Amino acid sequence: MAQIVGKGKLRMGMVGGGPGAFIGPVHRMGAELEGRIELVAGAFSQTAERSKAAGEFYRIDPARAYAGYKEMMEAERKRPDPIDFVAIVTPNHLHLPVALAALEAGFPVMSDKPATISYAEALDMERAVAKSGLPYGLTHTYAGYPLVREARAICASGMLGKIRKVAVEYFQGWLSRAVEAEGNKQASWRSDPAQNGPGGCIGDIGVHAFHLVEYVTGLDVTALNAELRTVVPGRRLDDDCNELMRLSNGATGVLMASQVAAGERNGLRLRVYGEEGSVEWYHEDPNRLRVRWVNGLEEIRHAAASYLSKDALAVTRLPIGHPEGLIEAFGILYREFADAVLGWKTGKANPVPDTLPGIRAAVRGMRYIEQTIASSKAQKWVEF
Amino acid sequence: MAQIVGKGKLRMGMVGGGPGAFIGPVHRMGAELEGRIELVAGAFSQTAERSKAAGEFYRIDPARAYAGYKEMMEAERKRPDPIDFVAIVTPNHLHLPVALAALEAGFPVMSDKPATISYAEALDMERAVAKSGLPYGLTHTYAGYPLVREARAICASGMLGKIRKVAVEYFQGWLSRAVEAEGNKQASWRSDPAQNGPGGCIGDIGVHAFHLVEYVTGLDVTALNAELRTVVPGRRLDDDCNELMRLSNGATGVLMASQVAAGERNGLRLRVYGEEGSVEWYHEDPNRLRVRWVNGLEEIRHAAASYLSKDALAVTRLPIGHPEGLIEAFGILYREFADAVLGWKTGKANPVPDTLPGIRAAVRGMRYIEQTIASSKAQKWVEF
Amino acid sequence: MAQIVGKGKLRMGMVGGGPGAFIGPVHRMGAELEGRIELVAGAFSQTAERSKAAGEFYRIDPARAYAGYKEMMEAERKRPDPIDFVAIVTPNHLHLPVALAALEAGFPVMSDKPATISYAEALDMERAVAKSGLPYGLTHTYAGYPLVREARAICASGMLGKIRKVAVEYFQGWLSRAVEAEGNKQASWRSDPAQNGPGGCIGDIGVHAFHLVEYVTGLDVTALNAELRTVVPGRRLDDDCNELMRLSNGATGVLMASQVAAGERNGLRLRVYGEEGSVEWYHEDPNRLRVRWVNGLEEIRHAAASYLSKDALAVTRLPIGHPEGLIEAFGILYREFADAVLGWKTGKANPVPDTLPGIRAAVRGMRYIEQTIASSKAQKWVEF
Amino acid sequence: MAQIVGKGKLRMGMVGGGPGAFIGPVHRMGAELEGRIELVAGAFSQTAERSKAAGEFYRIDPARAYAGYKEMMEAERKRPDPIDFVAIVTPNHLHLPVALAALEAGFPVMSDKPATISYAEALDMERAVAKSGLPYGLTHTYAGYPLVREARAICASGMLGKIRKVAVEYFQGWLSRAVEAEGNKQASWRSDPAQNGPGGCIGDIGVHAFHLVEYVTGLDVTALNAELRTVVPGRRLDDDCNELMRLSNGATGVLMASQVAAGERNGLRLRVYGEEGSVEWYHEDPNRLRVRWVNGLEEIRHAAASYLSKDALAVTRLPIGHPEGLIEAFGILYREFADAVLGWKTGKANPVPDTLPGIRAAVRGMRYIEQTIASSKAQKWVEF
Repeated sequence: MAQIVGKGKLRMGMVGGGPGAFIGPVHRMGAELEGRIELVAGAFSQTAERSKAAGEFYRIDPARAYAGYKEMMEAERKRPDPIDFVAIVTPNHLHLPVALAALEAGFPVMSDKPATISYAEALDMERAVAKSGLPYGLTHTYAGYPLVREARAICASGMLGKIRKVAVEYFQGWLSRAVEAEGNKQASWRSDPAQNGPGGCIGDIGVHAFHLVEYVTGLDVTALNAELRTVVPGRRLDDDCNELMRLSNGATGVLMASQVAAGERNGLRLRVYGEEGSVEWYHEDPNRLRVRWVNGLEEIRHAAASYLSKDALAVTRLPIGHPEGLIEAFGILYREFADAVLGWKTGKANPVPDTLPGIRAAVRGMRYIEQTIASSKAQKWVEF
Repeated sequence: MAQIVGKGKLRMGMVGGGPGAFIGPVHRMGAELEGRIELVAGAFSQTAERSKAAGEFYRIDPARAYAGYKEMMEAERKRPDPIDFVAIVTPNHLHLPVALAALEAGFPVMSDKPATISYAEALDMERAVAKSGLPYGLTHTYAGYPLVREARAICASGMLGKIRKVAVEYFQGWLSRAVEAEGNKQASWRSDPAQNGPGGCIGDIGVHAFHLVEYVTGLDVTALNAELRTVVPGRRLDDDCNELMRLSNGATGVLMASQVAAGERNGLRLRVYGEEGSVEWYHEDPNRLRVRWVNGLEEIRHAAASYLSKDALAVTRLPIGHPEGLIEAFGILYREFADAVLGWKTGKANPVPDTLPGIRAAVRGMRYIEQTIASSKAQKWVEF
Repeated sequence: MAQIVGKGKLRMGMVGGGPGAFIGPVHRMGAELEGRIELVAGAFSQTAERSKAAGEFYRIDPARAYAGYKEMMEAERKRPDPIDFVAIVTPNHLHLPVALAALEAGFPVMSDKPATISYAEALDMERAVAKSGLPYGLTHTYAGYPLVREARAICASGMLGKIRKVAVEYFQGWLSRAVEAEGNKQASWRSDPAQNGPGGCIGDIGVHAFHLVEYVTGLDVTALNAELRTVVPGRRLDDDCNELMRLSNGATGVLMASQVAAGERNGLRLRVYGEEGSVEWYHEDPNRLRVRWVNGLEEIRHAAASYLSKDALAVTRLPIGHPEGLIEAFGILYREFADAVLGWKTGKANPVPDTLPGIRAAVRGMRYIEQTIASSKAQKWVEF
Repeated sequence: MAQIVGKGKLRMGMVGGGPGAFIGPVHRMGAELEGRIELVAGAFSQTAERSKAAGEFYRIDPARAYAGYKEMMEAERKRPDPIDFVAIVTPNHLHLPVALAALEAGFPVMSDKPATISYAEALDMERAVAKSGLPYGLTHTYAGYPLVREARAICASGMLGKIRKVAVEYFQGWLSRAVEAEGNKQASWRSDPAQNGPGGCIGDIGVHAFHLVEYVTGLDVTALNAELRTVVPGRRLDDDCNELMRLSNGATGVLMASQVAAGERNGLRLRVYGEEGSVEWYHEDPNRLRVRWVNGLEEIRHAAASYLSKDALAVTRLPIGHPEGLIEAFGILYREFADAVLGWKTGKANPVPDTLPGIRAAVRGMRYIEQTIASSKAQKWVEF
């Protein structure tokens, strides 16, 4: 229980996450999991009435369920017990304006991904974060799993030798039909370029896969050769992507993302091959990591096992064999963000740990979306 | 998000769960997961000092970190905002006295398992619960997993035909060596008959396996033929058990429990065979249920899939492919217990839903422990 | 290709395996797999006509498709190119008489299991084999899999420390209904005590599971406590069995065998737990062995990998990742039997290698069947 | 056992497969598996002496172990019991000359893959086969697995709806180091362009993956966008490939092949996504097929199960749960080839069944290799 520092709970204000939202309650559960953060305020929806209803759902003080994010920031700043940071869980087009307002008001920001709706916006965000000096975190959730940390530690340790090849895929099937035309709220805003930005499938899940590659290998993607498609007739954004990648050390790779892979659930799988062996992690079996050596020996490493790296053990809560899942992974990112907020409050330099996806991941991710679209249009390799 | 009813949060007082405890924080995370319950008070340890320290860890009001459970109950009863129920996470020998005190003080009880340290005590508990009219819940955690609910629904539906055979196993390896002699706190009290009761491995995990059989099949175990052993020299209680079972409909079965199964983690596996097919659930892959039909077709049912039974869907929080784990399973039991508490407050008859393990499971479990020991001593079948 | 010794092929005469048989063709494929043995003669069925038809199916010289096994042995002895050994694949009640005739005629014997229809017969067999000095092999097929050999080598190496617990199960579902009453030939003779002997499910598959335990651990079973049942109404023999076991070093275990485990295919699974770790082998995934260490590390060992034991590598034919199956396992037993026959021909003492199940396994297996029945009747432990 | 037709065995003459060869013995085991084909002659190596030695190994008549393939064909034509067909298992550069000689001599040809060392040669082969009217088979082994046939039947049935996406990968790790420089015979000729042709990894395994895509989906690949690399310094041919694909119905796909994927064994995996669901087959678990439907339900279909398609059941030999492997898959291709030879002998038109990879697969495969190289050089999409 060493993770707990400081007294009292950090107060979170949420923007977005109103009735019908999926990710808002998940952020709340993740944020509050360790008892260090408490949701106390929110601008949950675009009408005062619906924001109130959400406030009731979250059981917060009705006075702190605001009609808009600007109102929230203004009001909270004047309170004796203001929020300590803002969590942004709106549709993508609001990420930047909300974040800018928060930073300006002096609130650290924890944002859902993708960071913005364009690379240009991401650069704006980067500048604003730098100028503010405030902690900024981005919920690339998968970075919160212990065995993703283990894979990262293995790559960093050099045990695999030089990385040669990467295969990452993120397969879902829930958009196999035009469910956005049938009133599915999640599908609806995601298929609207104005709210979602120009990357459909790649903005929703491809960017997770991309991040995972760079996060685990410690390498940068340097070039892409993509084929982006809209498979379901009438859909306004891409729903499927295959692309070749090149990495900064000369390795190559493949990234596949699809939301029309009928029968798939939420299948994010990463495989990294080095000279001496390889690692494989699969999101639907998150508490195991397969490590394979060049002689054919295969190890299965289990979450919470004593032989794991320090980095992996630091983020495991339960004993071996006791499954943790997505909410716990969110919890890890919020734990590290809380540490960053506390560090910032106490004047610590660079309080955001490099294990927590932050502004660099934000910029890289938006660049990924932009260049994937560019490559697919041009039908050729594009430099990154 | 239909699970949320009422306004405000229920206030939980915890007994046990002090520094070094494993299960206390898990109860807290599970209880608070859905934002309906809040840990506000506790008698966390046997000294005032350590209880205070735990209160700080849990970030509760220092005034509500009590030196003892009786003190807590007394003090809370006088508050304008008293606890709504008591969660008991102490070593086993305290389960009954704490529960009796709570019931007497008018607090509903959510208890860790096994219910007591003897069958006689369990009958006392049963009488006290009946007399009090208060909700009583028992955290047989595995009953909170969506796919355990699915397995139960499948058995109840008759789709498997008559149940013929059951195989359940609970394999751990963490007591392969005499870790209790090396200062492992978890191992230490569990191997002390005075604190733990007479069933070592069977009291810690065998009783979970036993409960799962009855919970999923809807059948009662009627006879046992057990071989209980203490494998590690010097250990004071059993650490391994194999037993044959007979069930109320004529089916037979096997129950294996071991804490010296070196290399195993937390492997609770249930297989139920009927005339038409079978189901298999394995705790370390909790979001899948294998259903096999007599013609050889095998289905894998996934948590949150639209085709699941009403009972399973009622307890899934995240979309398909987003793993949930042990804390979420605790969360389900606490959700149902919260419903029961609210139901009781509003005068509802029989507020405890039959999906939540309660006083009957408590009595059955203690009988299981007693009869397993009796059978092993007598080296023969004993009726249940 | 070091396995090949000598010139020319050994000539096999088969008894049983006529039209409609399952196991005859499998024996032929296994025996001939490595090009060292050739089926040249047979008494395939109980009528001359059907034996001829089978001879045509097997494409042998029509003159060598005999009407009966005695006729075959007599005729073959007089040929310049007689058979080198007899393979017995009849229903069980014929195993002993055919084997006795063969041994008397000077032919080594490779027999299907179980060895006979009673323990008394098995002792007769043992005496006859000893008297003849001829090689005798028993096709406990699973002993032919490379990773069963690896598991055996691991146990023998002491790497697991002292063996503490064994769990073996053999689950099939094909007799979930009374298919023997519907003309299924395989089911029909197996459910007739006169042809099959007194052990139904235990004689057909339980004896395989039992053998696997003793073969892999190197330990003897010393006591049993069984519950044998006939689940399907009208069936004349047992179709389901659960039993507790004790082993010669003090370890305990469980053996489950069922042919009414609806939805199961041919699920033979062995788990052996020692002080330092455990091994698990599952027949439906035969080219992998799971090895788990006490610290929670799990290895998957793959057939043909360079790190396997000498014993395992000696029986692998294809490179790593190229699946081998049941026919190949038969092929290994026939390879070792062929070595034994050649060894015997060249006067080698004890030509039957201890990796090939032989007369000891025959006697042990029949004792297992007898004592399982005895224990179940007496409802108590019986010594072995 | 309905597969057996005709009397007597077909006589096979083999070219290649001498000492140290891997694939020669596998062809022999596969060809002879069902007792319909017998290896009787061969030109196994490039010297008379080594061919004799191989003849001894295979236990054939020494007079029929020839010094060269031309000599074999000439001699066999004059025998009263000549070979019925020629099996070619040489390094790739000999496939065409041997096949041309065989066809000219009137012998049907069963060839290992890839068909030739260039697309131009494949067209020559196509013309020669057409001119001869003789059966020609190509051992794309994986087409012989029952569950590959099931996947193919599912695609053909339309149950998946329109195919949208294909992901195929073939990962090996055995060339992770420069083993060809250390005397590994398999690696040595495969890395020599003169013997192997211009495609290293893609010629050895990529072409299998490519074939599997077209074989299972029934679609043609129409364009490729490849990145071919030689990862291990000093190697003379490619050892790794990633490529995007387009298919004739508008579907897209990815093909990955690597022999430097350290830790991988022989991992050929195919996933096909349609509008209504998807199928997944993995070579290292060949007796299962995963079928996933758009609602999230997942089926595991097992080899030999009664519910499989007619095409799959036609090629299964053992009951459900009894593993078959690579040799059995070879056996199926040889069975179908034997049928074709017998059909041709009896004047049947088009005796080669479309389930057996033949001359079209030969031409397509060589085109695949050529266009992959062309695309990688040009760094862009190439039409097929």
